[in-house]
Amino acid sequence: MSTEEVAKKVVELVRKQAWYEALDLYDDDIVSVEAHAMGGGSPETRGKEGVRGKVDWWVNAMEVHGFKASEPFVAHDRFVVQYDADVAEKESKQRRQLSEVGVYTVKNGKIVREEFLPRV
Amino acid sequence: MSTEEVAKKVVELVRKQAWYEALDLYDDDIVSVEAHAMGGGSPETRGKEGVRGKVDWWVNAMEVHGFKASEPFVAHDRFVVQYDADVAEKESKQRRQLSEVGVYTVKNGKIVREEFLPRV
Repeated sequence: MSTEEVAKKVVELVRKQAWYEALDLYDDDIVSVEAHAMGGGSPETRGKEGVRGKVDWWVNAMEVHGFKASEPFVAHDRFVVQYDADVAEKESKQRRQLSEVGVYTVKNGKIVREEFLPRV
Repeated sequence: MSTEEVAKKVVELVRKQAWYEALDLYDDDIVSVEAHAMGGGSPETRGKEGVRGKVDWWVNAMEVHGFKASEPFVAHDRFVVQYDADVAEKESKQRRQLSEVGVYTVKNGKIVREEFLPRV
């Protein structure tokens, strides 16, 4: 798949909140970088199984009231999608509005790197 | 300057269309990547003087009716800004709406790489 095809598929799956299905788009050696480490660890997760663990955490911890994805911005091996989410942590019930972009790098039709940047 | 400080300065200067002033934020070895090559050359421009040439081209070729910059998205050494511009080529008078993101990489307080990704 081209970068644009991967980008459009990501947007389609995120809009359906089909997080596990989206894992098929990842390279086995994906590097996934958050702005902040969760639980004091590294902000960087390596490998598809690590990303699957992030999805497990998200699905277990979060009640999603809304999740919007922009149309993708694409050039060369890179694409960007903006996400606006309305979520609550299941445990604390604390409701939050998240606004961030994902910056993705594609190689041989698979996502090899993703970085998430919150709005400041 | 931190990544966030550079990001905010870029947004401030772009909103004023202070393109030449913004050059002060660039590293001498900046790599600037467009989605498409202008005039059949490379999409990649290297060096601050090359970027100054792009600014010269822009200022000479374009009549800007509006130029909006989003708040920046920031994490680690990277930031993203969305631009929505309403421009006309001075020669053809052809009016266009441009929507793209800039993905910037900062090192030692200077922008070392920028990539522009149009909305698909």
